[in-house]
Amino acid sequence: MKKFINHVDDFLAESLVGFATVHADLVVLNQEPLFVRRKELKPGKVALISGGGSGHEPLHSGFVGYGMLDAACPGQIFTSPTPDQMMAAAKAVDTGAGVLFIVKNYSGDLMNFEMASEMSDVANAMVLINDDVAVENSSYTTGRRGVAGAVIVEKLVGSLAESGANLEECKTFGDRINKRTASMGVAFTSCTVPAAGTLTFKIGDDEIEVGVGIHGEPGRRRAKFEPADAIAAELLTAIVDDLKPASDAQLLVLINGLGGTPLGELYLLFNSTRAWLQQHDLRIARAQVGSLTTSLEMAGASITLCVLDAEMMRHWDSAVHTPGLRWGR
Amino acid sequence: MKKFINHVDDFLAESLVGFATVHADLVVLNQEPLFVRRKELKPGKVALISGGGSGHEPLHSGFVGYGMLDAACPGQIFTSPTPDQMMAAAKAVDTGAGVLFIVKNYSGDLMNFEMASEMSDVANAMVLINDDVAVENSSYTTGRRGVAGAVIVEKLVGSLAESGANLEECKTFGDRINKRTASMGVAFTSCTVPAAGTLTFKIGDDEIEVGVGIHGEPGRRRAKFEPADAIAAELLTAIVDDLKPASDAQLLVLINGLGGTPLGELYLLFNSTRAWLQQHDLRIARAQVGSLTTSLEMAGASITLCVLDAEMMRHWDSAVHTPGLRWGR
Repeated sequence: MKKFINHVDDFLAESLVGFATVHADLVVLNQEPLFVRRKELKPGKVALISGGGSGHEPLHSGFVGYGMLDAACPGQIFTSPTPDQMMAAAKAVDTGAGVLFIVKNYSGDLMNFEMASEMSDVANAMVLINDDVAVENSSYTTGRRGVAGAVIVEKLVGSLAESGANLEECKTFGDRINKRTASMGVAFTSCTVPAAGTLTFKIGDDEIEVGVGIHGEPGRRRAKFEPADAIAAELLTAIVDDLKPASDAQLLVLINGLGGTPLGELYLLFNSTRAWLQQHDLRIARAQVGSLTTSLEMAGASITLCVLDAEMMRHWDSAVHTPGLRWGR
Repeated sequence: MKKFINHVDDFLAESLVGFATVHADLVVLNQEPLFVRRKELKPGKVALISGGGSGHEPLHSGFVGYGMLDAACPGQIFTSPTPDQMMAAAKAVDTGAGVLFIVKNYSGDLMNFEMASEMSDVANAMVLINDDVAVENSSYTTGRRGVAGAVIVEKLVGSLAESGANLEECKTFGDRINKRTASMGVAFTSCTVPAAGTLTFKIGDDEIEVGVGIHGEPGRRRAKFEPADAIAAELLTAIVDDLKPASDAQLLVLINGLGGTPLGELYLLFNSTRAWLQQHDLRIARAQVGSLTTSLEMAGASITLCVLDAEMMRHWDSAVHTPGLRWGR
């Protein structure tokens, strides 16, 4: 295992101290319990809190800041954060309008966020993200997994919250976005969780895992390596079968790298996606390419489509200022 | 070789079409000869043009836009662009104030940019970047290699050019920045150039290449794997020996991922860097962490230090709006 690491037990703490130092203009790190919070809170704004296992950076800590999250609770690598982190974060960032928990659908995350929701003194609601169309139920999940669609939910609801919407409106909007968002990924290589020290799964030099989860969970099938156009076609077929976008749908396309895939390949995958959608008379309204929801150093990528309506498009375009996404401000 | 690719010969073209489609608000792709230019040119502004082999994205195409480059000339993967690309780009983006070529020091790049400089009808000057302190002379270089320091030169000179400076002032500023900037990198893995189809170099599971070049050129030594603190100390010792910053120097630190290293590790390496600099009574004024000058999917990172003066700091902080760097606007 070759990583930039000193001791396995200190990896997360040292990485977060580095992160919080670089982005001290935007975030503050709370050490005990562990969470990252927005430096400047906005009184009366619904506070958005997400979290989950680490190893998916910039998700979620990298999306704390203006127009997205107010706090993120990082668990150990690929391990759920605990309810005390979530409750402390809620207490720290609530300014009177309550807290919306944004949770990717994994059994551990859901259980702990539900516990925090019940035990917290702060008024709260929850949006559950389950955009991964690859499989129903998986290693750590009942139902569909939550993957890169989280970035879109956090961006759009973050913008709505910034505009002064109340807790119920933010929850309703988050649920609507989740229903209009679908993703599927593919892995070329595995990854190594530092505490394990060995590869999460084995994969041959000529094999790909179609529908992989962001912790290396099995997908739909183990296939022989294929050209980018064929991979894009398989992922998009599954996504479009699920979403059933109307022929005049305004699509947001997110090409998300899983960590070990260079940007040049992601843009090529976007080009394959663009060509496939054009062949199917579907129109790209907005596009984002980058490694935003990663699986440590896994090589691979996911495609996410989100069917925007006018309100969603406005909130996608609005200013955002976080370590991981920044525009318009 | 598992990559998002259709045919080896089409990799660059398809990737660039994807890139230019996603960033159509900022850039325009010229197909023949191949270059990426800024969509909106500013009359009377010195035009900045860089270029080099592809495979280092977002460098250089990703830095075309407001406050950085006016054009970038991409060669094939790890292969110099040709003089006709550079001359066509110069003609396309010159608005009367001349063109500054920003060139990383590799024999092929330098030869071709010098040829373009001589043959072009456009008034031009050149800044040569050679920030890599690892080795004098290398596989493709006489003298020191140019690596991630290019990002800093392009940002700072881009800002100066935007402010209305003339060609000579831009060249002088670029040369000054280059002298105050030093870098060194380390590789954990090799990478595969698509046209070659095999790993550029072999490296053991417990080995690292200290001082590696961004095309996988040999560095100072092949070492056994070490903790992040020890790696940071070795790189920083070499960099500081070269730069000799004064005790009150204002340092810009750039932690640059080589493509296959996840963000969490880069922040940890930043934290090791921060601690080492603090122990040596050196002060970080600005910090940037990300994969900005990559070597395809190589795992590893480089550290760059730049000794800022007041003018340089102002130009670092100024607004930039490119696909790869964006703030303040």
